Amino acid sequence: MPGKRGASAAVAVDALRQRIIDGTYAPGDRMPSATLISEEFGIDRGTAARVLAQLREAGYIITKPSSGSYVRSFERIVRSFPHRLTVWREGEAIQDADTGKRARMVEVTVGEVPASESIASSLGVAPGDPVLRRSRRFAVEQRPVQLADSFYLIDMVRATPIVYTDTGPGGVYARLAEIGRAPVRFTERLHARMPYPAERTALELPGGTPVIAIVRTAFDAEDRCVEVTEMIIDASAYELEYHAEV
Amino acid sequence: MPGKRGASAAVAVDALRQRIIDGTYAPGDRMPSATLISEEFGIDRGTAARVLAQLREAGYIITKPSSGSYVRSFERIVRSFPHRLTVWREGEAIQDADTGKRARMVEVTVGEVPASESIASSLGVAPGDPVLRRSRRFAVEQRPVQLADSFYLIDMVRATPIVYTDTGPGGVYARLAEIGRAPVRFTERLHARMPYPAERTALELPGGTPVIAIVRTAFDAEDRCVEVTEMIIDASAYELEYHAEV
Repeated sequence: MPGKRGASAAVAVDALRQRIIDGTYAPGDRMPSATLISEEFGIDRGTAARVLAQLREAGYIITKPSSGSYVRSFERIVRSFPHRLTVWREGEAIQDADTGKRARMVEVTVGEVPASESIASSLGVAPGDPVLRRSRRFAVEQRPVQLADSFYLIDMVRATPIVYTDTGPGGVYARLAEIGRAPVRFTERLHARMPYPAERTALELPGGTPVIAIVRTAFDAEDRCVEVTEMIIDASAYELEYHAEV
Repeated sequence: MPGKRGASAAVAVDALRQRIIDGTYAPGDRMPSATLISEEFGIDRGTAARVLAQLREAGYIITKPSSGSYVRSFERIVRSFPHRLTVWREGEAIQDADTGKRARMVEVTVGEVPASESIASSLGVAPGDPVLRRSRRFAVEQRPVQLADSFYLIDMVRATPIVYTDTGPGGVYARLAEIGRAPVRFTERLHARMPYPAERTALELPGGTPVIAIVRTAFDAEDRCVEVTEMIIDASAYELEYHAEV
């Protein structure tokens, strides 16, 4: 294809992104190679490789080793409330209820942190009191989709595997059940907004992608709050489903 | 204040909007008058009036007759599922459960339309078959916050006030109950995204404001689908709350 001589990397990034957004390049399609991009836009091959790198970093394409780059195709994760919050009874993990057999990766860090005002209010401690925080970053099919911070009373969880990164079969809820604190009632509050810069970075969000901020509170049979979880999810990766009988 | 001579209306709009976003002008604060804006930015008074008009059209300020302009202050509407879907039993309207005594306005249009594929699938008719549509646009405190289209089987609702714009105490659900079709089970599926141009216009959304698209399906005690509602809500105006016991 004849090159547009002098076009910059930014012009090529914009043009290729536009073709992905308008469907000229459909999900799963193979992207033109760096060689073809360099010819079409009249840029050198190194610059064309950087164009592909930028599209990859912005989440539009994925690159498979020794195969090439492809338009990202991603089936929304369906998150079904409250079904997903009951699967621990069969030893399953909540996130597995959402993603089934899709490749999933979790980074977990656990530690004590001072309680924020809202966490303190939910857990019934004073702001600044130490609470246990489990921070997770979930990726599905190599795409980061969710940041989640769960908070617990230290005295309640100290002697349980909840303080470890790996909490075992059924996860935290199965461990809460073992100490007589099984969660039986849940509230989720959510709103959607544009991401803050740190969230955009952590979730590798392309421009124009909102997040949904969710706070879930879990209560046991005696109506004690046993967990508060603050989540930030990539709005383009999820569909949320809620069921109720009245 | 000394003027920045030569600044355009766009510069003034950007600067004033930034002060609203960063809290320099807090919700409910009185905005500087057109005269003060013309002095600060070195623009004539007519241009300064247009600056205020642009901020008003973008949803950042409201103007009170013979008083001035104020930074819009708007308390999020808390939409509580499934509680809000039970208030018809006391003759209350669902939207009243959300907004209490706040000023509310609804525009309603009712008519027959051909069923889309997803509506047809939910209601159990063929795509293109006529169904009854109730289209509503809700405003709270003069701010448009929601577009909602509800769909019904024509044969089911033909002889009921559901075909009128005013459905009476308790609304549609109370009328469904009167014909033995009271909704007792609900599913909501939602995702968040940037608005389409028509949605942005209808909801008068400022830039950078996502919407939440919700589809609610209602079933009666015999598990027949009695209503499907497609909603688009201004994400900055709402907080969604979901409760469940398991």
